[in-house]
Amino acid sequence: MEKIIYVDNSATTAVSEKALTAMLPYFRENYGNPSSIHSHGQAAQRALENSRRAVASAIGAYNNEIFFTSGGTESDNWAIRGVCELKRDKGSHIISTAIEHNAVLKTLNGLQNRGFEITLLEPDKYGQITAEQLKQAIRDDTILISIMTANNVVGTILPIKDLCAAAHEKGVIFHTDAVQAVSHIPLNVRALGVDLLSMSAHKFHGPKGVGALFSKLPLTPPPYLTGGGQEKGYRSGTENISGIVGMAAAIKEGTENLSENIAKITSNRNKLIENVLKIPGAYLTGDPTNRLPGLASFVFEGIEQAAFIVNKLNEYGICASSGSACSASSKEASHVLTAMGYDESASHGILRISLSEYNTEEEIDAIISRLPLIVAEIRSKKK
Amino acid sequence: MEKIIYVDNSATTAVSEKALTAMLPYFRENYGNPSSIHSHGQAAQRALENSRRAVASAIGAYNNEIFFTSGGTESDNWAIRGVCELKRDKGSHIISTAIEHNAVLKTLNGLQNRGFEITLLEPDKYGQITAEQLKQAIRDDTILISIMTANNVVGTILPIKDLCAAAHEKGVIFHTDAVQAVSHIPLNVRALGVDLLSMSAHKFHGPKGVGALFSKLPLTPPPYLTGGGQEKGYRSGTENISGIVGMAAAIKEGTENLSENIAKITSNRNKLIENVLKIPGAYLTGDPTNRLPGLASFVFEGIEQAAFIVNKLNEYGICASSGSACSASSKEASHVLTAMGYDESASHGILRISLSEYNTEEEIDAIISRLPLIVAEIRSKKK
Repeated sequence: MEKIIYVDNSATTAVSEKALTAMLPYFRENYGNPSSIHSHGQAAQRALENSRRAVASAIGAYNNEIFFTSGGTESDNWAIRGVCELKRDKGSHIISTAIEHNAVLKTLNGLQNRGFEITLLEPDKYGQITAEQLKQAIRDDTILISIMTANNVVGTILPIKDLCAAAHEKGVIFHTDAVQAVSHIPLNVRALGVDLLSMSAHKFHGPKGVGALFSKLPLTPPPYLTGGGQEKGYRSGTENISGIVGMAAAIKEGTENLSENIAKITSNRNKLIENVLKIPGAYLTGDPTNRLPGLASFVFEGIEQAAFIVNKLNEYGICASSGSACSASSKEASHVLTAMGYDESASHGILRISLSEYNTEEEIDAIISRLPLIVAEIRSKKK
Repeated sequence: MEKIIYVDNSATTAVSEKALTAMLPYFRENYGNPSSIHSHGQAAQRALENSRRAVASAIGAYNNEIFFTSGGTESDNWAIRGVCELKRDKGSHIISTAIEHNAVLKTLNGLQNRGFEITLLEPDKYGQITAEQLKQAIRDDTILISIMTANNVVGTILPIKDLCAAAHEKGVIFHTDAVQAVSHIPLNVRALGVDLLSMSAHKFHGPKGVGALFSKLPLTPPPYLTGGGQEKGYRSGTENISGIVGMAAAIKEGTENLSENIAKITSNRNKLIENVLKIPGAYLTGDPTNRLPGLASFVFEGIEQAAFIVNKLNEYGICASSGSACSASSKEASHVLTAMGYDESASHGILRISLSEYNTEEEIDAIISRLPLIVAEIRSKKK
């Protein structure tokens, strides 16, 4: 079988060798429950706290500001619903953006049905939101602002520091879904100033099924999962030690090699963009400069379903995506593109190629050599 | 270092070799996101659905009645809160028992604060609840009954089939926390008749951080985690494929070898009980006959803190537990024992030894030879 070229790293990534090696002893050797007082349990407890330190350190947080969860979706649900529960007395207005991941948008929908009022800021054509825009939307009864650090469909990096400052000027809590950003771009929660930040291990070569919520002290949203009182009572459920250890190893590896990785990935991405844009009627989406190193999304005139391209690439062993993974199999237009002003037909037609440091220049060359032919073929069939 | 004798299998278990072997390819080879339409994603999707079939088959459910979660705690939270949301219009009375795991009890506490009324049935001295007791507690506004299949502290197996029939007689939804029972005793959701059942992989030699909720069609509680729409929209978040595959492999292995495992474990447990009860002032807790094969809990006259015994056993490489793992490190008395009528001091003094099929008769012999001396030593120091 042909070697797979995997360029869908915004959907999920391979677990790094280091992360898997770190995880392995926690399945069959050090498998204790951290709540147990015997030596097996205490070894697990130490692994848990060492992991917490590693994750905290990678984003500039204190250890006791990190709460492990089952992933980015849980972190988003917890942060948003938790703040709403906490601040309900103060007001019921929430501000977010029209380009958030569904883990935020669907959660806001749910809150809307319970009487909260939601304002979704509309981005410009690059997917950007300005602090000025945000300021104009903040009201006396605004209790939460949730804006993503980097968009998962077009790769735009938003000005979180400025947005957060605008929120804090009015005393409003600021949450960011940083699932696509952590371990991909330099990120420090103190420098950004955010109150809450969601992350997911499998987006940075850690395992699936584990994530974390950063919550700036003294704020901690009320527990979303209640029970045995793990995570200082804030997130019950036996800790996924192997997953947590894997997450810690991956974020440590990712942040230690960040500059080097960014240089390599950006170089490959630039080569990709430069060459894809040679295809007539091909356009890059998202912010041309403030963008994730690895993410490049395109629309092609005359191609209304990027799934055709994705399927064709797949025949050649190239794994890419049409929009986000979550919406890949749905017939829905990308809400991100429609929010950015693309018309309905273009919003179905987005091809997302997302690179990691594992991708080689040869793989980029292979994509570059295939893609023009595939686009031409699909266009010709349409006629 | 001395070999560890691990007899805290009710807290957590070692991942089986088969389960780990099944999981390994899903970290670095087949690491696709099941939502992705390319071959890597579709391979993950197949693994997901094969796993769902295995879990469904192990408990006699249909595939589309199994929803993967991050563990037993999430399953309990989702089932209970979900039914309350669904049936709020019909009433606000919930019945459970005083011996549930905190994943149920703390969740009920939370609902009580939101206006639900909770009746906790009091067990007899063996930890049993009768259908007659339940019938008397059911009211016109009862919307949910949640009773555990087997207790995690004393090992009592409750008469779920009868309890469930009593609930259904009055048209009330029945949930059971079967975290300690699945893959430990014969269990079939159709035979039991339950509407909802929670399970957790790490209690049966699967990995931590993954579980499932069985929900009998056409009932499915509204989503607890919202987002990308995974699990047919009922449980969002990228699926923990390696964890799910590990859970499926473990439950398959466990249920295929169930009779053999039960025979071995019961024999070891009986030898343990017989010999521990030779210690003067030692008493077995829980139901003498209707009990989990592997769980044996004891109280000892004159010993008010079982932690002393656990620590002493630990010095000899024996990992046991004082009460449940979740409460092991807390100073709280076991709510299970106080509910069963033990006085406060005895409720601190429970020693739980929980066996799996991995434990050998030699390990039981080692425990039997150490324990009388330890108990005597602790008692003598007290004087």
